[in-house]
Amino acid sequence: MAIIVQKYGGSSISDIEKIKFVAKKVVERKRQGNKIVVVVSAMGKTTDNLISLAKQISSFPPERELDLLLSTGEIVSVALLCMAIENYGEQAEGFPGYFAGIKTDALHTKARIQKIEPSKIIEEIEKDKIVVVAGFQGISSENAITTLGRGGSDLTAIAIAGAIKADICEIYTDVEGIFTSDPNRIKKAKLIPFISYEELLEMASSGAKVMQSRAVEFAKKYKIPFIVKSTFKDGEGTMVKEIELKEGAVVSSVAIDENQAKISIFRVPDRPGIAGKIFSALGQAGINVDMIVQNVGRDGFADLSFTVNINEIEKTKNIVEKIAKEIEAEKIITDPDICKISIIGIGMMNQPGVAGRMFSCLGKNGINIEMISTSEIKISCVVRKKDGEKALIELHKEFIENK
Amino acid sequence: MAIIVQKYGGSSISDIEKIKFVAKKVVERKRQGNKIVVVVSAMGKTTDNLISLAKQISSFPPERELDLLLSTGEIVSVALLCMAIENYGEQAEGFPGYFAGIKTDALHTKARIQKIEPSKIIEEIEKDKIVVVAGFQGISSENAITTLGRGGSDLTAIAIAGAIKADICEIYTDVEGIFTSDPNRIKKAKLIPFISYEELLEMASSGAKVMQSRAVEFAKKYKIPFIVKSTFKDGEGTMVKEIELKEGAVVSSVAIDENQAKISIFRVPDRPGIAGKIFSALGQAGINVDMIVQNVGRDGFADLSFTVNINEIEKTKNIVEKIAKEIEAEKIITDPDICKISIIGIGMMNQPGVAGRMFSCLGKNGINIEMISTSEIKISCVVRKKDGEKALIELHKEFIENK
Repeated sequence: MAIIVQKYGGSSISDIEKIKFVAKKVVERKRQGNKIVVVVSAMGKTTDNLISLAKQISSFPPERELDLLLSTGEIVSVALLCMAIENYGEQAEGFPGYFAGIKTDALHTKARIQKIEPSKIIEEIEKDKIVVVAGFQGISSENAITTLGRGGSDLTAIAIAGAIKADICEIYTDVEGIFTSDPNRIKKAKLIPFISYEELLEMASSGAKVMQSRAVEFAKKYKIPFIVKSTFKDGEGTMVKEIELKEGAVVSSVAIDENQAKISIFRVPDRPGIAGKIFSALGQAGINVDMIVQNVGRDGFADLSFTVNINEIEKTKNIVEKIAKEIEAEKIITDPDICKISIIGIGMMNQPGVAGRMFSCLGKNGINIEMISTSEIKISCVVRKKDGEKALIELHKEFIENK
Repeated sequence: MAIIVQKYGGSSISDIEKIKFVAKKVVERKRQGNKIVVVVSAMGKTTDNLISLAKQISSFPPERELDLLLSTGEIVSVALLCMAIENYGEQAEGFPGYFAGIKTDALHTKARIQKIEPSKIIEEIEKDKIVVVAGFQGISSENAITTLGRGGSDLTAIAIAGAIKADICEIYTDVEGIFTSDPNRIKKAKLIPFISYEELLEMASSGAKVMQSRAVEFAKKYKIPFIVKSTFKDGEGTMVKEIELKEGAVVSSVAIDENQAKISIFRVPDRPGIAGKIFSALGQAGINVDMIVQNVGRDGFADLSFTVNINEIEKTKNIVEKIAKEIEAEKIITDPDICKISIIGIGMMNQPGVAGRMFSCLGKNGINIEMISTSEIKISCVVRKKDGEKALIELHKEFIENK
């Protein structure tokens, strides 16, 4: 007998037929002799619809009330899935997040889990019931409903799996697992059977739409292994777990992020504190900066380039223009026609020549590299947006198909 | 400064524009120097839509999960109304039923309020906030969400008004108050400025669609006065309160119920226990019987007639047929072409001649009376359905317009 936590996302339960399908799947798993906790998201586009209602009242709806509003979406899923499970003859117990013992801080719309008190969940699975928990939500110490940010149901599932010492946490989604690249774009993309938390995190920050990063970070911190697999297709999926650094580890995936834009500031005075000033101002405005490149200073000046999400480019430009004036920088250029291409693989940095091989591959294909950034397990390059597709295909050939 | 509880039903907040209108109304009332608690129903047809989702899973969805599902409708209203109130510059505090201290028994889908713990509500209105509470819902001692039955938000409002010792409870709805008869059918129907709990209860059971009876019973039991008035039109509305029996009190309203059907059983053996057998069986099947008439026995047999809701006539017939066979009654006739016409007024029974005046009025207009039943404050007659409209008009003339 195993204790299993399963999570089903919004696309897996977007209508009643799918809810029935999921219920059947859950019940079968239970009858194989397992104890099951299911975490569900809101059905299909429910959360978007609720947000749109709130926006009709106020462009910036108060976050506390927004959380109360959004929390209803997952509760609807919980109630319906419980009904469907009981229809198949098993007993179900539905928990909104606040009854499931998910205690968070009071940072509404992006609350952090502080503690899970899983006694009620454990009590009910001990009674042989299937427990269904509303994902994405918790309760603050002030007894207000909180939500964990977009995709927060993954976090709910992983945190509960950790708290009840589940044998495995299964994240069900509309893809078959984690691939070496986007299978919609790269026909030869392969399913990765095992991947480390770190690689998955780098993939997420490289533009691969996989899972909420906070959920993966939480899993990494508490060493909770989980599987990403398809709700509707059979298959082994991808196991995400601690993987020891091996000599000779290779590139595990190639990712593209086409939602980046580049901002360059020319002739920035090359003295301490200037970069800090710029990036603190952006941070305060809630703008996430991704890659940052500063060239070597010359004559007491340097050129500074960085990338942000393409939706934040105007906001970023306004902030940067003010500072540029203060520090008497020469000019600012914004460039939305770029993309970021990344190769990811644990231990890559210990493999001499991986970076060189990447740059050569791009060069051989006539693709110019505009920015480079590296981490322990990732190398990212900014290239022209029009070159992105080709870069993705060629790098996947070079590192995955031909390896 | 007064403490005011206001309740807005689903039709008063069926879209975002209406929610904004209600918010403005609430804020204005607050700024007149009052402390306000608002109770809201689910928006428009939300509850019906949720029920239809549940019915797609199971014709008889489990009631515990159904309550969890339905409770989300009012929570959405709470969150949106709070946002709209804050948009007008006042602070709002939203409470799902379980946070508002509404403790119920565990009779899911028709739970009864056992206790209100209003300390949190009081705490927040003392902080000068407008408190918005989800109507229709509470929490059982087993920590499950319960609902109070259709129209339960009226009950929530009245119960909270009692618990926090509000100066007044205002029930906002889509009509201007309680009328002497249905204003859609009787042009000369007049708004009743004051009415007793008892009369309102009799009106509800006589077919007038006014308010949930349980809410009125609760108000009567704890002597909580309330006002029924229109959300969108100005006006004084109708105050419902304890009214002392006065000599010479008159008929206050005339009501028609066209959703009744009559069942007659002929040649029922006239011995003890037979009627009990029939009506116990119907009670166990959850069928509400309204009027019952048994004629004087002859040769050891009697004829028995009663009325039920027209939707239950088939179910009733099936049950009664089995018993009729057992007791060897002669035959059963069901008759859906009837309606019930009632006059209601406190102290009516102490006014000799009211009943006679009613029967004469009907007779004078060629309307045959098929059944009669009376209570302290009501006289009801069953007549042909085709005569209902005329009976209503003539009785309203006789007792209200010409009085």
